[in-house]
Amino acid sequence: LIRLHVEADLAAGARVEPRQEQAHYLVRVMRLAIDETLLVFNGRDGEWRARLTDVTKRGCALAVEEQVRAQAQSPDLDLIVALVKRARLETIVEKAAELGARRVRLAITERTNADHTNVARLEAIAAEAAEQTGRLDVPQVLVPMPLAMIFAGWESPDRRLMFCDEEGDAAPAATALGAAEGRRWAVLIGPEGGFSPGERAAIRALPWVTPVTLGPRILRADTAAIAALTLWQSMLGDWRGA
Amino acid sequence: LIRLHVEADLAAGARVEPRQEQAHYLVRVMRLAIDETLLVFNGRDGEWRARLTDVTKRGCALAVEEQVRAQAQSPDLDLIVALVKRARLETIVEKAAELGARRVRLAITERTNADHTNVARLEAIAAEAAEQTGRLDVPQVLVPMPLAMIFAGWESPDRRLMFCDEEGDAAPAATALGAAEGRRWAVLIGPEGGFSPGERAAIRALPWVTPVTLGPRILRADTAAIAALTLWQSMLGDWRGA
Repeated sequence: LIRLHVEADLAAGARVEPRQEQAHYLVRVMRLAIDETLLVFNGRDGEWRARLTDVTKRGCALAVEEQVRAQAQSPDLDLIVALVKRARLETIVEKAAELGARRVRLAITERTNADHTNVARLEAIAAEAAEQTGRLDVPQVLVPMPLAMIFAGWESPDRRLMFCDEEGDAAPAATALGAAEGRRWAVLIGPEGGFSPGERAAIRALPWVTPVTLGPRILRADTAAIAALTLWQSMLGDWRGA
Repeated sequence: LIRLHVEADLAAGARVEPRQEQAHYLVRVMRLAIDETLLVFNGRDGEWRARLTDVTKRGCALAVEEQVRAQAQSPDLDLIVALVKRARLETIVEKAAELGARRVRLAITERTNADHTNVARLEAIAAEAAEQTGRLDVPQVLVPMPLAMIFAGWESPDRRLMFCDEEGDAAPAATALGAAEGRRWAVLIGPEGGFSPGERAAIRALPWVTPVTLGPRILRADTAAIAALTLWQSMLGDWRGA
């Protein structure tokens, strides 16, 4: 069944009008016919079965019928990622959605030289990946912010930070996370050129940091992000099983 | 320093002539000048410092000077991956190199409908990723083979198979691998459409199989491959630390 993320409230009997490009996707690309069903979710009301009821030149309408899954939240996991080149950043956002991160925070670091970022496009990628991966919410993508400001506004020392430190003298990630606790976490991935020595020292001095290493080889930023989220989910998140 | 994978034997005083496109990369793209140094490796003789000695219209030559690292092998880990679409398959080969797999075996499954694969291009991607990630060998890429033939020719029951089973009733990967042993392994990643019920039953009946799950969400093939290799390296491979 097709899954569609919508903005509207969902309840039995509700009528939903997907955005124009979503209507195009349903009717033209997937050739959904009147009375055929799909799944819809909005990140608040769980997942619902809906039926295509109207197709017009400019859009379509769905009738919401029955809830098939109650709302559930992804683990409280942020991915903080330095701005990297566009293609790789888009991959990272897609993978963060698949791997169950709740928010993606874009960080400007000393060795970042990306001048602009299309956050709306990253949000669309996150929504599409959420549709495909089967989750009930879409990771939020925040506008880029200097890394130091992210730390200055850190909500609470209860949110731990998994720092993937390329210098290699931290504990292996699985070991460090296996001995760790806490329900609120963030994963920090640096830019392609790494953090400056000053940044690295400042990060390692944070009271809520858990430095980790991701093996003996140099990883690209997208690989490091996927590996780090995988290990967090496996040691502390919802990959641990029931 | 630039790292270059070459075919030639490496020893102090050896002269190496990189391939034409490598020479172009060194001289035109990276603008390496005469007498500047780089690192070279061939998968057999360790890593050597070399010096650019000659530049001609058609190529260049390097003088091999001093070994800087002795040869070391990656863990004995195969990635067996069903043929998927070209872009995603290329990503998987790149990531297999970064994550330290020794061989990539391409499998034809019931739900595979890729008609041709450019193995030479995948080998080039593997070599380039090996250069960037700092490893001393390049993963071998084998020509596509039906999955049943791969199993029929399985070298020994001592090579365990980590089967990423999308049905979700296997143990979490970190748990299953944490209780596992063995030095020779393979990781099996299915096609986008999954394995057929018959294939899945046949795989689970193999005496050397360890079925695992990769969390509650649906993962694309490239995400699953990176996650599985990460968890294997963390639980059984060279990410465990000294």
